[in-house]
Amino acid sequence: MSFNPQPVIILVEPQMGENIGMCARAMLNCGLDRLRLVRPRDGWPNAAAKATAADADVVIGKVEVYASLADAVADCHHVVATSARDRSLPIPLLNSGEAAGKVADWSGAGQQVAVIFGPEASGLDNDAISRAEILMRFETNPDFSSLNLAQSVLLFGWEWRSAEAGGRQSGATADLQEAASRKELEQFFNRLESNLEERGFFLTPELKPTTLKSLRSIFSRSAVSEKEVKLLQGMLTALLREKRE
Amino acid sequence: MSFNPQPVIILVEPQMGENIGMCARAMLNCGLDRLRLVRPRDGWPNAAAKATAADADVVIGKVEVYASLADAVADCHHVVATSARDRSLPIPLLNSGEAAGKVADWSGAGQQVAVIFGPEASGLDNDAISRAEILMRFETNPDFSSLNLAQSVLLFGWEWRSAEAGGRQSGATADLQEAASRKELEQFFNRLESNLEERGFFLTPELKPTTLKSLRSIFSRSAVSEKEVKLLQGMLTALLREKRE
Repeated sequence: MSFNPQPVIILVEPQMGENIGMCARAMLNCGLDRLRLVRPRDGWPNAAAKATAADADVVIGKVEVYASLADAVADCHHVVATSARDRSLPIPLLNSGEAAGKVADWSGAGQQVAVIFGPEASGLDNDAISRAEILMRFETNPDFSSLNLAQSVLLFGWEWRSAEAGGRQSGATADLQEAASRKELEQFFNRLESNLEERGFFLTPELKPTTLKSLRSIFSRSAVSEKEVKLLQGMLTALLREKRE
Repeated sequence: MSFNPQPVIILVEPQMGENIGMCARAMLNCGLDRLRLVRPRDGWPNAAAKATAADADVVIGKVEVYASLADAVADCHHVVATSARDRSLPIPLLNSGEAAGKVADWSGAGQQVAVIFGPEASGLDNDAISRAEILMRFETNPDFSSLNLAQSVLLFGWEWRSAEAGGRQSGATADLQEAASRKELEQFFNRLESNLEERGFFLTPELKPTTLKSLRSIFSRSAVSEKEVKLLQGMLTALLREKRE
């Protein structure tokens, strides 16, 4: 992986091209230019996005499109998810300033960070959330908290820029080294899932997705290192062995 | 003046109703709800503003409209102007975090603060700038710095909310007490102007506006107290007296 201290912004299933364009503008305002899209509703390229982005078309021009969020975060070491809602998954919830401080620290250590934003109407679903190491919350007026997509991207970018400009302390030190890429973690998790499946772990098909998300979240939010993924794989291998007599 | 710790947001000659509506939303996201308009292009009330504001119509519903910026800031003790541009007037330029810290300090001391934003296309003109005590700059990417009106309002509101939430130190202490209202300052300034006029101070009509702005800025940015306005008035009175033999 080439060193690039800038986090990638990932929009999951964005609907309006205009909003993608506004996000590109907000990103570039803050010095961010790496935008990834997962299943944009109206396909890609998108004329409305380009028109709205105007002078920020440098961002639009190098957008990367992915068929799944798993693919979009495969090369990332850390995933931050934006969510205003309380979640069933016990993922650490940070305010945007704290989260941006962590992102800056991680990036500064040469690690790739993804910051993911959900679709306009619904926000991120629990499958996406379960891939996150931390949740980022924007502490808006509790009586009127709804930010649109481009506003959320702007506020994250703004906090990131402040954090980069210096001095925000996040306390992120222990997890700065050796975080595994999400691809390595996903390989482990897929192996875990198929083995669980084969062993009748999932009592009903209906319950499987929820169970998987809860499981995934445990690994996602713990910022496991490469060494630890190897350990998990070894653990899994061991568990799959026949019991020795 | 009734105690109200919230700054007023003033849009000078806003053009699009949609932008006024988006500003109202951004304000309410940050817990701000006092919006003033100076000469809105399409008049007031404005259906587009109301439609765009949607659930933030509580802000729209109590908008105050003024015929001049002087009127709009008359009851204010401190005026902060947003400006990305370098100006000829030597007004202290703060980044948005520092400026928001000052605003929070002033408001906390029961003083009325105005934060003024210019028209979409052009920004604030020098007449407006000359009324400001401090200029606030958003430190965006220098290669792509243009924020739209609602984005600027959002970022100020966000910084203000952070400052209110606690702990941002601005160093504003000496100027916390007794700042004069802008009405008092304006009365002094108008008296000064007419007396200067009567005395042939302005060499040509063409030069007068620029000269006045430079003069006004000197008083505007010095956060004069009520006591000091009285002193200035007294000084002016004295200067206008016949020289004693």
